[in-house]
Amino acid sequence: MIDFITLCDYFGTFAFAISGIRLASAKQFDWFGAYVVGVVTAVGGGTVRDILLNDIPFWMTQPSYLIVSGLALLFVIIFRKYVIKLNNTFFIFDAIGLGLFVIVGIVKTLEFGFPMWVAIVMGTITGSFGGMIRDILINEVPLVLRKDIYALACVFGGIAYWCCIQFDLPSALSQFISATIVFSIRILAIKYHISLPVLRGEE
Amino acid sequence: MIDFITLCDYFGTFAFAISGIRLASAKQFDWFGAYVVGVVTAVGGGTVRDILLNDIPFWMTQPSYLIVSGLALLFVIIFRKYVIKLNNTFFIFDAIGLGLFVIVGIVKTLEFGFPMWVAIVMGTITGSFGGMIRDILINEVPLVLRKDIYALACVFGGIAYWCCIQFDLPSALSQFISATIVFSIRILAIKYHISLPVLRGEE
Amino acid sequence: MIDFITLCDYFGTFAFAISGIRLASAKQFDWFGAYVVGVVTAVGGGTVRDILLNDIPFWMTQPSYLIVSGLALLFVIIFRKYVIKLNNTFFIFDAIGLGLFVIVGIVKTLEFGFPMWVAIVMGTITGSFGGMIRDILINEVPLVLRKDIYALACVFGGIAYWCCIQFDLPSALSQFISATIVFSIRILAIKYHISLPVLRGEE
Repeated sequence: MIDFITLCDYFGTFAFAISGIRLASAKQFDWFGAYVVGVVTAVGGGTVRDILLNDIPFWMTQPSYLIVSGLALLFVIIFRKYVIKLNNTFFIFDAIGLGLFVIVGIVKTLEFGFPMWVAIVMGTITGSFGGMIRDILINEVPLVLRKDIYALACVFGGIAYWCCIQFDLPSALSQFISATIVFSIRILAIKYHISLPVLRGEE
Repeated sequence: MIDFITLCDYFGTFAFAISGIRLASAKQFDWFGAYVVGVVTAVGGGTVRDILLNDIPFWMTQPSYLIVSGLALLFVIIFRKYVIKLNNTFFIFDAIGLGLFVIVGIVKTLEFGFPMWVAIVMGTITGSFGGMIRDILINEVPLVLRKDIYALACVFGGIAYWCCIQFDLPSALSQFISATIVFSIRILAIKYHISLPVLRGEE
Repeated sequence: MIDFITLCDYFGTFAFAISGIRLASAKQFDWFGAYVVGVVTAVGGGTVRDILLNDIPFWMTQPSYLIVSGLALLFVIIFRKYVIKLNNTFFIFDAIGLGLFVIVGIVKTLEFGFPMWVAIVMGTITGSFGGMIRDILINEVPLVLRKDIYALACVFGGIAYWCCIQFDLPSALSQFISATIVFSIRILAIKYHISLPVLRGEE
């Protein structure tokens, strides 16, 4: 089970880093700049969570996240022409990573003794703030705040986890169910173009 | 007295959140994205302060700030057409909130054992960094750095607090005086179009 | 030796603050806004480092960094017309500051008990995140991520430090060598227009 989760973690990190690196390449970043954007996209959400929880950021205890992001950079440099064709694959990885990141954020926050509503907020931050910081770095309005059900999918995953806990489901099952719900909402929202209403400005 | 302060805190949070939500609506954010911008505007300054003080962010200990921000979103959605007419009311709320936020930042920093100059910086950060992060999220140059006496009003409030302490005024009175000074400077600066000189670039 | 390092620290802070204030002036910031950008440029990298290390930010223990940044603002206001002519001087100061900041970041991180690779990352963050936050505040794509060897010079300085340690060189010498390497790479990269390849986007 641990191996499977670690694998999901790496695939998610890889997909998040790829999304940062690709957007950086559209803005003429140099290789190292693109790598920085990739790393920040991959670890940014969890880093903000750990800072808020007053803990040492998770990626400082083992180098694998920086290495996986480096592999993502190599991948984009070498397979540049084929990256577009893999869009759907990356999207699946990204959705898997999102589901996992949300759960990791929730479980860690509960372990720190915070109530469930803080855990749901932290799960959402873990999943969505990396993409937000990415868009700030490339000087765009954050996509996750403008369309698609992204941050909201994280919130629903958190509420699902809370429901599972209410029904006394075992911890591993609760985590699997909520991650699947985050994953499914992302897939369905993209496939059927479901989105929240845009907030209309004043006339 | 506590009730009055709590009330000011909620009105200030509400007004700060409204300002974030309205600016997000001008950039076509969806409902949840606008909510995130509203929350960040309301709690961002205090969160940066608490991170710098190495403390758990204040909004993680009670859900009222997220709830008040949610009410602000509902308010903007439902009363969209009338929000503009309430501009002056929101401005008053915002100035009250600013005064209170500055004092909360100063008092907390002094309680943590830092010297007065750090407390003044933290009061200014508490009052003005929420608006700065808001403008970064909507991809604009931060307004508080460009015009109006905003961050500087916070600094003056801090200096006023220091003067009160020098004269051995009781703590509650000192807080009231400094909050009133922040509030008054904001009101006067807007009413009489007082602003700092713009820093001219090189020719 | 301590005096020399403190001097380098102040000159570096001054040069970093100048770069923030000048870019803010090009965007019509008012005096106080320009000062905030200057301070953030000068202390931003070290502040992010200290937050990640879960420590109180260094500038909160003594006011000299805020004072030096204030002198930088005065300097730009008074000598506006001559600032351009001093471009080369500022560049040298900036490169000296960068070398020193990287070393300070590395040494502090090692003192906190982290492994060398974390120290190299923290040295790079100390040197380059101030400029990154500066560019976010003035709403530009961060320059340090797009061209010139900047963040990468910090990484090389960190690797040099690691090599020195491997050869059991005394601590002060290792620090001097690595700072010189950061400094030299910056000077050479600008003088000979050396830069990393830009990451090309998809066709």
